[in-house]
Amino acid sequence: MSILSALTGDDEIAALLSDAAQVDAMVRFEVALADASAEAGLIAAEAAAAVAGAAAGFEADWADLAEGMRRDGVVVPALVKQLRAHLPEEHRAALHQGATSQDAIDTALMLQLAKVLDVLEQRLAAVQSRLDALRDEHGARPLMAHTRMQAALPTTWSDKFRSWSEPLVRYQAALVAARRTLLVVQLGGPVGDRGSFAGRGDTIARLLSQKLDLGLASPWHATRDPVVAFGSLLALISGSLGKMGADIALLTQSEVAAVQIAGGGGSSAMAHKNNPVAAEVLVSLARFNAGLSGTLNQAMVHENERSGAAWTLEWMVLPQMAVTAGAGLRLALQLLDQLRFGTE
Amino acid sequence: MSILSALTGDDEIAALLSDAAQVDAMVRFEVALADASAEAGLIAAEAAAAVAGAAAGFEADWADLAEGMRRDGVVVPALVKQLRAHLPEEHRAALHQGATSQDAIDTALMLQLAKVLDVLEQRLAAVQSRLDALRDEHGARPLMAHTRMQAALPTTWSDKFRSWSEPLVRYQAALVAARRTLLVVQLGGPVGDRGSFAGRGDTIARLLSQKLDLGLASPWHATRDPVVAFGSLLALISGSLGKMGADIALLTQSEVAAVQIAGGGGSSAMAHKNNPVAAEVLVSLARFNAGLSGTLNQAMVHENERSGAAWTLEWMVLPQMAVTAGAGLRLALQLLDQLRFGTE
Amino acid sequence: MSILSALTGDDEIAALLSDAAQVDAMVRFEVALADASAEAGLIAAEAAAAVAGAAAGFEADWADLAEGMRRDGVVVPALVKQLRAHLPEEHRAALHQGATSQDAIDTALMLQLAKVLDVLEQRLAAVQSRLDALRDEHGARPLMAHTRMQAALPTTWSDKFRSWSEPLVRYQAALVAARRTLLVVQLGGPVGDRGSFAGRGDTIARLLSQKLDLGLASPWHATRDPVVAFGSLLALISGSLGKMGADIALLTQSEVAAVQIAGGGGSSAMAHKNNPVAAEVLVSLARFNAGLSGTLNQAMVHENERSGAAWTLEWMVLPQMAVTAGAGLRLALQLLDQLRFGTE
Amino acid sequence: MSILSALTGDDEIAALLSDAAQVDAMVRFEVALADASAEAGLIAAEAAAAVAGAAAGFEADWADLAEGMRRDGVVVPALVKQLRAHLPEEHRAALHQGATSQDAIDTALMLQLAKVLDVLEQRLAAVQSRLDALRDEHGARPLMAHTRMQAALPTTWSDKFRSWSEPLVRYQAALVAARRTLLVVQLGGPVGDRGSFAGRGDTIARLLSQKLDLGLASPWHATRDPVVAFGSLLALISGSLGKMGADIALLTQSEVAAVQIAGGGGSSAMAHKNNPVAAEVLVSLARFNAGLSGTLNQAMVHENERSGAAWTLEWMVLPQMAVTAGAGLRLALQLLDQLRFGTE
Repeated sequence: MSILSALTGDDEIAALLSDAAQVDAMVRFEVALADASAEAGLIAAEAAAAVAGAAAGFEADWADLAEGMRRDGVVVPALVKQLRAHLPEEHRAALHQGATSQDAIDTALMLQLAKVLDVLEQRLAAVQSRLDALRDEHGARPLMAHTRMQAALPTTWSDKFRSWSEPLVRYQAALVAARRTLLVVQLGGPVGDRGSFAGRGDTIARLLSQKLDLGLASPWHATRDPVVAFGSLLALISGSLGKMGADIALLTQSEVAAVQIAGGGGSSAMAHKNNPVAAEVLVSLARFNAGLSGTLNQAMVHENERSGAAWTLEWMVLPQMAVTAGAGLRLALQLLDQLRFGTE
Repeated sequence: MSILSALTGDDEIAALLSDAAQVDAMVRFEVALADASAEAGLIAAEAAAAVAGAAAGFEADWADLAEGMRRDGVVVPALVKQLRAHLPEEHRAALHQGATSQDAIDTALMLQLAKVLDVLEQRLAAVQSRLDALRDEHGARPLMAHTRMQAALPTTWSDKFRSWSEPLVRYQAALVAARRTLLVVQLGGPVGDRGSFAGRGDTIARLLSQKLDLGLASPWHATRDPVVAFGSLLALISGSLGKMGADIALLTQSEVAAVQIAGGGGSSAMAHKNNPVAAEVLVSLARFNAGLSGTLNQAMVHENERSGAAWTLEWMVLPQMAVTAGAGLRLALQLLDQLRFGTE
Repeated sequence: MSILSALTGDDEIAALLSDAAQVDAMVRFEVALADASAEAGLIAAEAAAAVAGAAAGFEADWADLAEGMRRDGVVVPALVKQLRAHLPEEHRAALHQGATSQDAIDTALMLQLAKVLDVLEQRLAAVQSRLDALRDEHGARPLMAHTRMQAALPTTWSDKFRSWSEPLVRYQAALVAARRTLLVVQLGGPVGDRGSFAGRGDTIARLLSQKLDLGLASPWHATRDPVVAFGSLLALISGSLGKMGADIALLTQSEVAAVQIAGGGGSSAMAHKNNPVAAEVLVSLARFNAGLSGTLNQAMVHENERSGAAWTLEWMVLPQMAVTAGAGLRLALQLLDQLRFGTE
Repeated sequence: MSILSALTGDDEIAALLSDAAQVDAMVRFEVALADASAEAGLIAAEAAAAVAGAAAGFEADWADLAEGMRRDGVVVPALVKQLRAHLPEEHRAALHQGATSQDAIDTALMLQLAKVLDVLEQRLAAVQSRLDALRDEHGARPLMAHTRMQAALPTTWSDKFRSWSEPLVRYQAALVAARRTLLVVQLGGPVGDRGSFAGRGDTIARLLSQKLDLGLASPWHATRDPVVAFGSLLALISGSLGKMGADIALLTQSEVAAVQIAGGGGSSAMAHKNNPVAAEVLVSLARFNAGLSGTLNQAMVHENERSGAAWTLEWMVLPQMAVTAGAGLRLALQLLDQLRFGTE
């Protein structure tokens, strides 16, 4: 973790999207695939058992995986080779049989995102709950509304809390919906038509989705809209938190002082400063994720049955977006706890 | 319409988002607001009738509206002034009573977008239907799949058509959902708390939504996620069409010739060229809308109760995005009709 | 011109980038090319004279040009056909001989941008000059500096004016430099190797550049960095003006009132409002051009000797960027004239 | 380093922009500032010597720095506190005297970027040199040119190499120019007016720039165009390399085979594949940096004398851009070495 990530990052979500978590999820995919393939009669039950056994104690050779990534543009060939080395000769072909790298990586991503969604939902609910509590406690307080950067007319804090809270309700619903459309198994084989599973592809996909607790879908190697739509949702979350941050930074200006921040950031030069650091960073995170959302959309132009260019771009962008959204929720909760309203 | 817009634009959607359409919709808002306000007892029935009468024959002074936009940053003050000039003195205050510019503009936008959604839905269905027909007719034809820019394994056109079609199904569902979340009335008054409607704001909002056939929502002056989410959907639509365009441009390469385009573009220098113009432009449109989507997300950071900066940014971006998505659907339909599949 | 463009657009620059201006510039290119080709011995002097004659009275058939654009993805084939119709049969081949559409369009763009640079330079100088005058008149006035959205320490307006002015000095220098690197002739023929000019391509290019007062360059059909770099400069200009706008919007807040805006925008609901419209819109324009700059950079991935996809994307983005930068300079000048500094 | 960074990252540039490199550079700034301040008579020579001594053996408490970053939004207050703990009481105030966090961070960034520029220049020259050698060796080979995704007319590899090479020449010149405009010292004190240096600020800045081998500039806390312009240059570099990657991916298609890649990436499912991994990733890197460039431009809207929001956004974006440009140059060199041109 870098120093900057202490401010703009998120340890919990970063861990869910780390190399270790990805390899765990890919191994879990391979085990479940072998199980499903055995049940469907594609491979022997002994082979599936051997895969499970090899996976149980598997420890990755990280340098070799990095070297594989550098060479192949995708980590799976190296990973499969490492796993196979733990299998008896006669079961090696059964591992990853019929599958392609993208099956492993995309399904693993969904296993990882399922946990990311858990975290985001918990934090959204926590911010929501904190806003509700603030509204109960301070909603009746008067607040000067500001339109177009000018004082407008008096209103109350209740309306302010509502404006911060309502989008979060929508995002919680959207995350629930995303579980259905996004968290689906990927299984297509080399060219996405399940032609490599000897006619058992649909059965194996169904069994795989059950074993991994993911939804069932036809192969989506080249149709990336659910992934990109999820990125758009992350950007919206960051955007609404950025709006909250901008409001608070404006309302805590020295000259406005509609609310105070307890324990804002210090300055190396001005001891009197009490900087709205978390509020400002919420704006940074919003602008960062807005930009990344645009970039992620560029990955929609996914050439033919698999685009290395577009897919790699997803890898570079989506994890950052999830971390950024998570960091925003963490900071929002901290910031709301720092708010101080007059001398009640 | 510019020459470029013959290629990348869309006359039908552009017309729905034109100045004329916006003024029509804003006038419709003012009439419905007066009706609702009269029913709710805020203004006299005679006033509402006078507003309806003034609106009936209203012709805008466009130069004055432009001047008002330049001066006020929003066209409504000038428009309201023009409309009031058509009212007897005693009913002038009743026009726009309690409302703010944003109520008129945002509600008008939703009236306009309702029609845009109609067009998009029709065209999505048409593209979908054309893809279904192509799949029926040509799905069994063999096609070499390409992964990472290399020939991979043989598959069929059926899989290709499916990969183009499946996202469109999702977008049609998303547009239906957007009707509920996006197409809602905006009524909040100057600072978004309905405090300017003498306690009758909620009633008026409800009546207004019924009269305009829009959903009911609490004021959303500063919570722009439904608007930005709609932009994200437009970018996804463009993205999937861009993927189709990229595929076709690749498959119609001289050396690949998996399919032909009848009547592609000509060159000023090479008579033998048959350029996949529509396919290429689908890629341009996808990249353009991807970028605009990122920019629209920047407008989520909407300061306090109304941000002129963020709101103006929406105006600059969203209409272009709708036109671009519409142009893509138009070109996609044209392009699919141009495809020619061998003689077998 | 739309109503919105009264606020965010720029009539003068838009006119320089209009269809009419483009056709004028392309016709100018064709005439100069014929002249140069005659001097170089590629075509007959009579043919060149005939081209000049046909161009003199040429009036475009706009509907036909739009139709050509729709069909060919580029307007030049239709334009050349129209021009040829005004030529005697024997000179028709001499028109556009050896050239390709991109030669005409890119060179025409440079002729147009030369005038855009004139306007931008004049306006940058005007804003600069206004800032200098303000610094002379008001620089000694005290001003509370703000860091991280908090009052920091007292400084003077001189430092504020300097922070607005210094980047503009750099942009003026950059525009001068851009004249050398950007404003160059494009002449490559169908595949960019000047192979279509019978060995006289380099000579013709040199003569053409002299006739059109543009720099000489080897063909740059597919190397678009000067175009994209110019877009980056436009975004920087907008960005610095956006910073000025943000500062003024913050400093004119009701609670801060470090400076006043005379004649800000009015509200349809709150008569007391004096909205910093131009300041806010400068922020919108900065964010818009920032986003477009990112999109324009996507056009750098220009496939092989000519990418319809990438080139069309340039057409969609660059003119908007120039208009946006120009609008910002216009608004900045207006805004600086509206500033009022106390009564001392 | 993550597995992904083996593909899309750059160890060398990442190290130059690491926490360790930043802290080294900030310590170097503090030592040079103390020296300059002593020479200028602001602090005692003994104090400067003490600062140099404390810095010599300084080892950062990284957890404390991260905690400081989290609290203050900037790492400098914690770093200065750590450094002061190594100083005798009487010299503690002399450390960082008159300076602000931004002076340390921005100047340190320039010290770091000076080394990044070294690496980029070396690699640009290496790619350039490799292209020159390829042109010498293979330039005369015939190559079918492709325009708008269609075979156009025969040309030679010489033109192809030229189109890849010419922009790199411009970038090398731009990097040289960037040394003058970008690599300048930052010294302004709390609000950027050097008011905190007892009238000796300009002298100290001059001395500081000499000691650190950086250019001299007036304070640029809030005028970020040189930083953003550098980002734009990085995006251009990535863009041109992305164009080269796209060309190679197209030219090495199975059906085109105008050139071969020796040792492309393997597939987990198709043993016959020889994927143009580096070519594809060059496209990914181009699109990633294009998007980041747009986001970095958003940071131009830097409120008043210091914007935590805009500045933090720079931190999130710029280092990634440098790493991405560096990775592209690394991959380009590798890819050019992998090209194989028939046997003729």
